[in-house]
Amino acid sequence: MPHERNIGRIQAAHARIKPYIHRTPVMTCATLDRLTGSKLFFKCETFQRAGAFKVAGAVNAVFSLSDREAERGVATHSSGNHAAALARAAGLRGIPAYIVMPQDSNRLKIAAVEGYGGQITFCEATLAARESAAAQVLERTRATMIHPYDNLQVIAGQGTAAWELLDDVPDLDLVIVPVGGGGLLSGTLLTVKSTQPAVRVMGAEPALADDAQRGWQARRRMPPCAPVSIADGLRTSLGELTTPIIFDLVDDILLASEEGILQATRLFLERMKIVVEPSGAVPLAALLEQTTPLAAERIGIVLSGGNVDLEAILRR
Amino acid sequence: MPHERNIGRIQAAHARIKPYIHRTPVMTCATLDRLTGSKLFFKCETFQRAGAFKVAGAVNAVFSLSDREAERGVATHSSGNHAAALARAAGLRGIPAYIVMPQDSNRLKIAAVEGYGGQITFCEATLAARESAAAQVLERTRATMIHPYDNLQVIAGQGTAAWELLDDVPDLDLVIVPVGGGGLLSGTLLTVKSTQPAVRVMGAEPALADDAQRGWQARRRMPPCAPVSIADGLRTSLGELTTPIIFDLVDDILLASEEGILQATRLFLERMKIVVEPSGAVPLAALLEQTTPLAAERIGIVLSGGNVDLEAILRR
Repeated sequence: MPHERNIGRIQAAHARIKPYIHRTPVMTCATLDRLTGSKLFFKCETFQRAGAFKVAGAVNAVFSLSDREAERGVATHSSGNHAAALARAAGLRGIPAYIVMPQDSNRLKIAAVEGYGGQITFCEATLAARESAAAQVLERTRATMIHPYDNLQVIAGQGTAAWELLDDVPDLDLVIVPVGGGGLLSGTLLTVKSTQPAVRVMGAEPALADDAQRGWQARRRMPPCAPVSIADGLRTSLGELTTPIIFDLVDDILLASEEGILQATRLFLERMKIVVEPSGAVPLAALLEQTTPLAAERIGIVLSGGNVDLEAILRR
Repeated sequence: MPHERNIGRIQAAHARIKPYIHRTPVMTCATLDRLTGSKLFFKCETFQRAGAFKVAGAVNAVFSLSDREAERGVATHSSGNHAAALARAAGLRGIPAYIVMPQDSNRLKIAAVEGYGGQITFCEATLAARESAAAQVLERTRATMIHPYDNLQVIAGQGTAAWELLDDVPDLDLVIVPVGGGGLLSGTLLTVKSTQPAVRVMGAEPALADDAQRGWQARRRMPPCAPVSIADGLRTSLGELTTPIIFDLVDDILLASEEGILQATRLFLERMKIVVEPSGAVPLAALLEQTTPLAAERIGIVLSGGNVDLEAILRR
């Protein structure tokens, strides 16, 4: 696959979504540098509109539709951030958004979808239940399905955070992003490998949702793990489109324990004073749990989002 | 008092402390603009080194000492942020810091002082107990007392946050900062009134610690209220040096309820994804509780710090 040519798609996405997203800051923290032994650069998509990087992909997908496609609306199934992002993007274009969400989605994410005017259908917390509910919604509405990650426009949009990160921070050795369905990781890979191929790119996922690591090692797609990790955004497995990009280009996939994810979430709160959802804290957790050093002096990390029920986190 | 001439002192402080502090970002939030009906600009001292604006005053005071004064070290009594800031400033200059802290100071603030190498003496949670413990420490060590707010170099340092805010954001109508001992408010007043006198400046304090408002209205210093407000940084009353500056120059002093302070703290967490301590959330809380509008389109707010025990907050 000619990944190098994808940079045109990322650039086009960046230009298309720019009016609708924040250029989020890159932040640093002396304490976390000391704890990890590297210089860390955090791209704070936690401050992104709707509270997560997902708006980039959703806006890019919605604004890539023709007027005729757009008027029937868009639909998706999502554990939360993509749902809110799509509802918001649809609202910006003045079209309806039909959202299938698992019943156990966190309350802030449900409230956000409702706040942006999304029409929610709740379902069981399995991929099969989501897909079947989504199919029914599509049949009823004839809306365009915007998959949370298995969509080329979504992938291109998710690559723009890394695009900005590389633009702001010179001489990175390594970029680490969370991996669930693989939209952020594949977008990041297309961006980094087509512009600065010497920069390594790694995914990070919960050890309790290690389907991406096992799949990458075995070179075949794995089914999702049981949806038990606290990193609720990373419970899904890789998609049809994201899998080959990741298998071809990724340098490694790191794992983080549940305890480590909680601890990293707390470090962001206590030391950096920012709210990062557990899924976004997975790369730092994985870094802190590395037993063999990654040999990277300057590491960029995309903090994917900040939509978290803090009461639930701090109660643990 | 020739307040206009104070700008030289603020400028000198800014130049002196620059190598040792962050230039913190100014952030905005569409949701909070909608809730208040104004355009709000938050100067995020919550991301300042040691987690609060207090480092500016402490560094300015410590680096203004002669070598001979400095070598005996510095001492203070503080409920927390000034303590950590002074310990850090002393460490930067390589001199000892002797810190008197109330026993009920929050655990993060105590850990921060210890982390910066400060030598702590605990005391009862009253101003009298603090002052008497501090006097004993001074007699023993012959260190220089750096009062948390009643010190001209500290006041000048605290004025630098407003200096940067005015530099970053044109055409503000109003600046609101929390008021406890009055260091931040008096420094802000000296800065704003000597550079942009048309910009109004208001203090905000808990209704349960309304000594500044009552004192300003009666034109005399009031004793501190019972130390019950959740905004633990604002429980002290105005000082000898800060009182006349505030009485002469402040445009108003606003109050916030305890419930409103908690709600504002949560809004920062949930909507802006930043950790603001209750004392820092008081200006937003006061704004949200205004019954008569302040007639200000563009309002600058200094978020004074982010050192908070979130478990204690979210448990309420």
